[in-house]
Amino acid sequence: MTVTARPLPAYLVSRFNGWRATSYQDNKAWYRRLAESGQHPRAMVISCCDSRVHVTSIFGADEGEFFIHRNIANLVPPHNPDGERHGTSAAVEYAVTSLGVAHIIVLGHSGCGGVKGCHDMCSGHSPQLEEKTSFVGRWLDILKPGYERVATLPQDQILRALEKQAVLVSLENLMTFPFVMDAVADDRLTLHGLWNNIGEGELEQYDPARGGFVAI
Amino acid sequence: MTVTARPLPAYLVSRFNGWRATSYQDNKAWYRRLAESGQHPRAMVISCCDSRVHVTSIFGADEGEFFIHRNIANLVPPHNPDGERHGTSAAVEYAVTSLGVAHIIVLGHSGCGGVKGCHDMCSGHSPQLEEKTSFVGRWLDILKPGYERVATLPQDQILRALEKQAVLVSLENLMTFPFVMDAVADDRLTLHGLWNNIGEGELEQYDPARGGFVAI
Amino acid sequence: MTVTARPLPAYLVSRFNGWRATSYQDNKAWYRRLAESGQHPRAMVISCCDSRVHVTSIFGADEGEFFIHRNIANLVPPHNPDGERHGTSAAVEYAVTSLGVAHIIVLGHSGCGGVKGCHDMCSGHSPQLEEKTSFVGRWLDILKPGYERVATLPQDQILRALEKQAVLVSLENLMTFPFVMDAVADDRLTLHGLWNNIGEGELEQYDPARGGFVAI
Amino acid sequence: MTVTARPLPAYLVSRFNGWRATSYQDNKAWYRRLAESGQHPRAMVISCCDSRVHVTSIFGADEGEFFIHRNIANLVPPHNPDGERHGTSAAVEYAVTSLGVAHIIVLGHSGCGGVKGCHDMCSGHSPQLEEKTSFVGRWLDILKPGYERVATLPQDQILRALEKQAVLVSLENLMTFPFVMDAVADDRLTLHGLWNNIGEGELEQYDPARGGFVAI
Repeated sequence: MTVTARPLPAYLVSRFNGWRATSYQDNKAWYRRLAESGQHPRAMVISCCDSRVHVTSIFGADEGEFFIHRNIANLVPPHNPDGERHGTSAAVEYAVTSLGVAHIIVLGHSGCGGVKGCHDMCSGHSPQLEEKTSFVGRWLDILKPGYERVATLPQDQILRALEKQAVLVSLENLMTFPFVMDAVADDRLTLHGLWNNIGEGELEQYDPARGGFVAI
Repeated sequence: MTVTARPLPAYLVSRFNGWRATSYQDNKAWYRRLAESGQHPRAMVISCCDSRVHVTSIFGADEGEFFIHRNIANLVPPHNPDGERHGTSAAVEYAVTSLGVAHIIVLGHSGCGGVKGCHDMCSGHSPQLEEKTSFVGRWLDILKPGYERVATLPQDQILRALEKQAVLVSLENLMTFPFVMDAVADDRLTLHGLWNNIGEGELEQYDPARGGFVAI
Repeated sequence: MTVTARPLPAYLVSRFNGWRATSYQDNKAWYRRLAESGQHPRAMVISCCDSRVHVTSIFGADEGEFFIHRNIANLVPPHNPDGERHGTSAAVEYAVTSLGVAHIIVLGHSGCGGVKGCHDMCSGHSPQLEEKTSFVGRWLDILKPGYERVATLPQDQILRALEKQAVLVSLENLMTFPFVMDAVADDRLTLHGLWNNIGEGELEQYDPARGGFVAI
Repeated sequence: MTVTARPLPAYLVSRFNGWRATSYQDNKAWYRRLAESGQHPRAMVISCCDSRVHVTSIFGADEGEFFIHRNIANLVPPHNPDGERHGTSAAVEYAVTSLGVAHIIVLGHSGCGGVKGCHDMCSGHSPQLEEKTSFVGRWLDILKPGYERVATLPQDQILRALEKQAVLVSLENLMTFPFVMDAVADDRLTLHGLWNNIGEGELEQYDPARGGFVAI
């Protein structure tokens, strides 16, 4: 086994030491209990890896509240039990069948680089993403059905519309998992679709009755 | 398109409105700039979905600092450009080739349910995880080489050792990606392996010279 | 004086600041008036400490509406003016004689841990609750007359029946307080017995005519 | 058994039906899970019965987060295992030994009628509260040591000071319970003292280093 690893940068060591001397010290009892009793999160959040999205901040979440999966463009692929590795499907399965979360919140956001990549690829402007070996490209294939629905929109609307499609496609795909469908049917699980406008600090949620996103 | 979605619970709406009126309002300029200039994160963090791990808290991270991918047991699969969907590989590719992050930090933790699942499966105590249709089981196959290395340890040491293997296997697999290997070779990227003891608020990092994890 | 106290966890500080910037700011006039004119609640609610019971939520209560006493298993002891400390009796006395509330609502609920403790103690399965030094055990003695009435019910009915007895015993005990009895006789006060099924979101109320609880 | 009870007022029935058709319906999965998995609250809150104090609102608390005991003037009596009924002591015992909460938050507030009663009684202006049969008076005896400390303050400062003493006396008394003292010593429990200015929407917390309350 050869492992390549370097010491953590000093600024992160400093910050960690500061956290340990303050937040950890003041809440040691809670961390101890979390360690001993295990996690009982009430919700799973599926959000983008984007560094500008801090789901714990905008919802004032404490350690232990949200089971958080983050991937490029907050995408959930359709159910496909082919024996291969599916990290997102594994996270959803664990959240629903082992942890019994009551909510799955899909959280999209403005200015999503992954969504833009999908748009560029689907509109023929990013040939490298079309290559078989592009992990980003193949991952963004999940969003292609969403692109089809918005492809004819004016240029200045299409990216935002596609960001919201990333939420909707994920919500649709979630319902292709038998354990999600069953839990929703049994009222053990509810799904929520959100889109966060980073620059404006706004949150919109999908309203099936209106067929669109509405500001909270 | 039929999308199943319900309104966000009221307590989350309240909290978001509170965040918007305070943190957002106080830092609007920064959010605006983040929205306009895009993200320029300095590091990618690969951590577990576990609700008890708040990487932004322990490192006092601001919006824009960390590109965060979270999956079950903070695992990175080996490079496998087969044209299929690989969410983790896509996130790593995007972070290294598009964002040019300087660090990739793999952050493991104590009491990891995914790691325990791998242990139970590999030791024959969880047949359902061995089934082809188990997304969790197939995902945890990534950690099997780690299990082989610690399988003969005493019962009271094996889980913690396997949690650290989850970090090491991921670090090893990261180096099978050509774009990671090249960036590390060119000193454009450094890798870091951490393990967080949740109850004790401690952080250990992998030190290749000692061949083990050392407290920070 | 040595007082042990630590700073409030950061997530609660954040949430409070958010509340202050929104709900408080939007309703400052009402809070100011509440502060200046004192409280004039129309009802007293006696409910359990259980974290799953939010009496203000299910009744959409505004600040100032309900004078709320919460204890283990929503119990009221019988009138016993022995000069000792009786927190529940003090709360009832204050509500009726100082505030002049028009209603006292005793609110029981499903899955009550206190009621289960009483059942276990009375059926000989919890010796530690029988000890003189057990505060929980001695408090639950209040419910013993209720246990006697349901002790012979089938095992799958007894806990729910005892939860409802916790409401009825409290209603009976309330009438042993002279100031309650007088206020009820003078039509200045009415008593109400409710039982909340948490999982089903249902509310049942005691109907003396039928001698049982009936869904609202 | 003769139980005096009347039907719930229509306005409360209406509000409950509205809650059931909206909040409950939208979060049925969470209520179901709360019912099935029991409560795992992270904190106990000891607050006043005062109708103007909504602890769940100011902290954006969801069902399941806070185990809430409410009595007159948020008082905790000293440890006194005499085999009598002690509702507050029972609630603290249950929270610490059965639920294993990580925090106990004592929340005082401005304009507290109970605190004013204690002041009037101790300064000889409320003879009826001195009677043996006054439940309110006997309950407020708990706060007498706090009154002694502030009795010589100017008239316009004494009530506010006594409200804060109600928090401090409770924090001191909490530490007389062996199971509280042990849990604090073992870092399984932390105590917090807060005082809420209702009219101003402010929160102060006790800081032992400064020996006083400081705005959050």
